[in-house]
Amino acid sequence: MDQAQARSRLAVAVEEARAGLAEGGIPIGAALFGADGALLGRGHNRRVQDGDPSMHAETAAFRAAGRQRSYRGTTMVTTLSPCWYCSGLVRQFGISRVVIGEAVTFRGGHDWLAEHGVEIVLLDDPECVELMRDFIKDRPELWNEDIGE
Amino acid sequence: MDQAQARSRLAVAVEEARAGLAEGGIPIGAALFGADGALLGRGHNRRVQDGDPSMHAETAAFRAAGRQRSYRGTTMVTTLSPCWYCSGLVRQFGISRVVIGEAVTFRGGHDWLAEHGVEIVLLDDPECVELMRDFIKDRPELWNEDIGE
Repeated sequence: MDQAQARSRLAVAVEEARAGLAEGGIPIGAALFGADGALLGRGHNRRVQDGDPSMHAETAAFRAAGRQRSYRGTTMVTTLSPCWYCSGLVRQFGISRVVIGEAVTFRGGHDWLAEHGVEIVLLDDPECVELMRDFIKDRPELWNEDIGE
Repeated sequence: MDQAQARSRLAVAVEEARAGLAEGGIPIGAALFGADGALLGRGHNRRVQDGDPSMHAETAAFRAAGRQRSYRGTTMVTTLSPCWYCSGLVRQFGISRVVIGEAVTFRGGHDWLAEHGVEIVLLDDPECVELMRDFIKDRPELWNEDIGE
């Protein structure tokens, strides 16, 4: 996947992250795209909004996509490097590619995914970095809760 | 944790698995216990019932437990060896111990969890094995969908 295509898909995840922030939530967004490029599902972290610790951005997008017979060729786009929980999701279901907004403020399991054959596109996007930097500075206790630290 | 204590906790997860089966779902159940032994949450796979692929047994139990500041000392009990998705959950949130009904019909990420300091209690429970053997024989396509194969 080329950078322009990855950036255009990242825009959907950033919209989700901003929607989560506007709701008073954790500003991480994600979207799952099919092998044909169609948007299958999008979502954002819902820990605060729903009191639901199981809804990270990636799991919310995965859930929104509903039941799928196969994830071959799909792309998970996320504003932040996926934590172990979300990396495990990608590996278990055979999602082929992960586009990541940034891995500066948090480095999850994307190297492990690459070792197991997942294509990783790391964008180092300044808007994603700023969203997380501001959030971690403002709400460190909430951020630590979300990553179990 | 001794085997008797582990078996008594496994009974809750087996009840959940049987409830899922009775609903026409995938018979895998789980429960999360606090460091003090209190039941924090219990649940079962809800792919069929809710059309929700994100609700594996372990993630359903984790969700039912609601927001927790820390998972230190907690125990996840599951009827089946946790897949990568659920193993990632355990690692990310620092769940201390996993009690597993069986790893004969499916071997997930529990060795990886052990390498990363999670205490694993593997029970090799015949009732859990039978539940999964019968289910995989009866509904192979549904089982493969649930593990992304």
